This record gives sequence, C-alpha cells and structure tokens, in this order.
Amino acid sequence: MTKAFLEPLIKSLSRLPAIGRRSAERIAYRLIEKPDLLIPDLIAALTYAQDEICCCQRCGNITIREKDPCSICISPTREPKLCLVEDAGDIDSLEAAGGYKGRYHAFHGCLSPMRGIGPAELKLDTVKERIRNEQIEEVIIALNTGVESDATAVFLMDALRDTGVKVSRVAYGIPAGSGLEYADGVTLSRAMQGRHVLD
Amino acid sequence: MTKAFLEPLIKSLSRLPAIGRRSAERIAYRLIEKPDLLIPDLIAALTYAQDEICCCQRCGNITIREKDPCSICISPTREPKLCLVEDAGDIDSLEAAGGYKGRYHAFHGCLSPMRGIGPAELKLDTVKERIRNEQIEEVIIALNTGVESDATAVFLMDALRDTGVKVSRVAYGIPAGSGLEYADGVTLSRAMQGRHVLD
Repeated sequence: MTKAFLEPLIKSLSRLPAIGRRSAERIAYRLIEKPDLLIPDLIAALTYAQDEICCCQRCGNITIREKDPCSICISPTREPKLCLVEDAGDIDSLEAAGGYKGRYHAFHGCLSPMRGIGPAELKLDTVKERIRNEQIEEVIIALNTGVESDATAVFLMDALRDTGVKVSRVAYGIPAGSGLEYADGVTLSRAMQGRHVLD
Repeated sequence: MTKAFLEPLIKSLSRLPAIGRRSAERIAYRLIEKPDLLIPDLIAALTYAQDEICCCQRCGNITIREKDPCSICISPTREPKLCLVEDAGDIDSLEAAGGYKGRYHAFHGCLSPMRGIGPAELKLDTVKERIRNEQIEEVIIALNTGVESDATAVFLMDALRDTGVKVSRVAYGIPAGSGLEYADGVTLSRAMQGRHVLD
C-alpha cells in the first residue's frame, strides 16, 4: 500500500513503456529518497526533449526542431525507396544495421482496434503523397511481427496497390546467430514459407 | 545506435532503478513520439514531488513537507520500539502488513564499500539519540537479505550494544505461500537455523 500523495507520480511513471506498477513504485520512492540527485536532472532532460526534439513532420523520424524535415528526408543521395516502419526507433535500428539507403516513414503504431487506431490514424494519404512527390520506386513494409502488425501489413499491401508502385515486405525467418531449435513454431513456418531456390 | 541529442534523456532515465539502457531508449522514443501525452504530465508530477514531498527529517519515512516529522513520528500511541529498515518503501510494506505498532528508522541504503557508503553515512548517532529521546525499549533490525545487508545487520547489532537497549532481528525463512522445494539453499539453511521448539 503506497501513500496517496505518491499516486500522481506513480501513475505518470507507469504510463511509460516497460514500467509496470511495481517498478513505478520503486522509482517513485527512489526519486523522493534522492531528490537532489535525480529529479532536477530528469526535469531538465524532459524539458529539453519537449522544447528541442520532435518527430520529423515528413517521415516521423526523431529529430531536433531546427532540423525538421530530418537529415534523411533532406538528403539528396537517398534512393527513391520508402521503408514503412511502426516506430521511430526502428529507423535508428535499420540505419545502424546499414545497407539500406532509401527513405523511411514511421506510423508511430499499427492498426489496433483495442487502442482505437484505425486506418485513418495511419494517415496513408501522406504516404501516397510522398510516393508521388518523391518519385518513390519501391515501398518496403518493415513492420514488427504479431497479430496487429501482420494485419496492418496486409492492409498496407492492399491499400498501396492503386499507387502502381512496387511493394515488398522484409523477410521473416530464423534470426542470425540463432539455431532452429530455439525458434518458435511461427518463426519456423515463416522461414519455410520464405525459402528460396539456390542457384 | 541512438541519436546523440537523445543521450541526456536516456542517461537520466537509466539512472532510475529497474531501468536499463534498453528500457531507457524505449521510454525516450515513446516520450518523443507522444510528447503532449506524456512529457507535461511527467514534468508536473516530478515538480510536485520535488516541491511537496520529502523524507521525514526524523525517521526517513516519505511524507509531505507540511507533515514533517511524519504522522508515525508524531503519533502518541506508537509503542517505544524502533524498526530499522533500508528503504522508505519498506516502512509502507510493514505498515500495510499490519501488526507492528512501533516507530521506524530508514537508512536509505546499507553499508556498501562499492557505492561508498560507510558507517558514517548510516548516521548511527541519530539512531542512538532517538533511542534515548524516545525511550525506545527494543530495536528491531529489518534489513533485506544479501551480503551487504547482512554485513550491515551485524555492524548494527555490534554498534548498538552500548546503548543497553534490547536488539532483535526479524526472522528469515520460508516465505508464506511457498514450499520447501521452491526455496534456495541459503533460505533453507536460515529456516533451519531459526527453528524454534514447539510447546
């Protein structure tokens, strides 16, 4: 049982991803026990984020306000490809992996009736407008795996058909550095379905 | 690889308990993706905590600034017992469990050479002063288990000997609702050591 006056802090904290009620309580206690050490620093970092960091108005990538559209969007050397991802963090992961030299578009979510995210929230008009304006030649769907993400991918493939652009989807299969024995059934089926003939 | 301008926020977040680097990154991305939803609320909660909530100057319990010393410290009906705990949250856990009607003293940590917490940081003089001023008849050591906590308990037992007050320690053993088969070796040894004769 926690004290009532700690509730606003615990509630705010537990709305963050990966923080459950119990973790939020631990964090709240620690913050109060060491207020000078943690709170001003955290408020400063949050204020800075609120004032200076934003999502790129064109692609949804995280950028600083004075560089909006982001560096990827304004780069003249990027190939005319558009990779559709769920979260802005996925863009950083793909950039860190290297290899892909096209542009991105982050939806900040996927279709989810449970959370009230329908086709309108995905703002597909923006994507179609980008395909036209940026002369995109290929759209690559790189969503997560899972029921909602898979449904979104199917919806996207269907909705983008009338643009006439080539639509592809990243491969799902056995992850690098792992063995078949560690892969679950769905991963294995997808790896089998996605098999390709060796020349 | 994350963006350099996200580092201050990620660093601040990963200094909180139970949040590692990976969770801090996820939280940072989510905060930026939904800034209006999360950041102002969190800053308000942190500012409120900083301005209105504090640790009781006498016992270390978490309280609001206008009730310092806390309600337990000023209660005239509490028994003259003093329960020594590591964290302020432990006080709430013991209060929620009920049964104990004495006072508390939270050290906000335990002896830890690794984190530079020595006997001076425990401020035992304050505890001894409380034992005298509040006519404490029994001191109950209720620290966590673990190498550092156990060492602190031994140190406390030794250091409080000259006060002449009765010093006890909470029992360690098989937790309620669990079976012997789930208990680790140390827990089992402690349960055996702490056995008592049934009348």
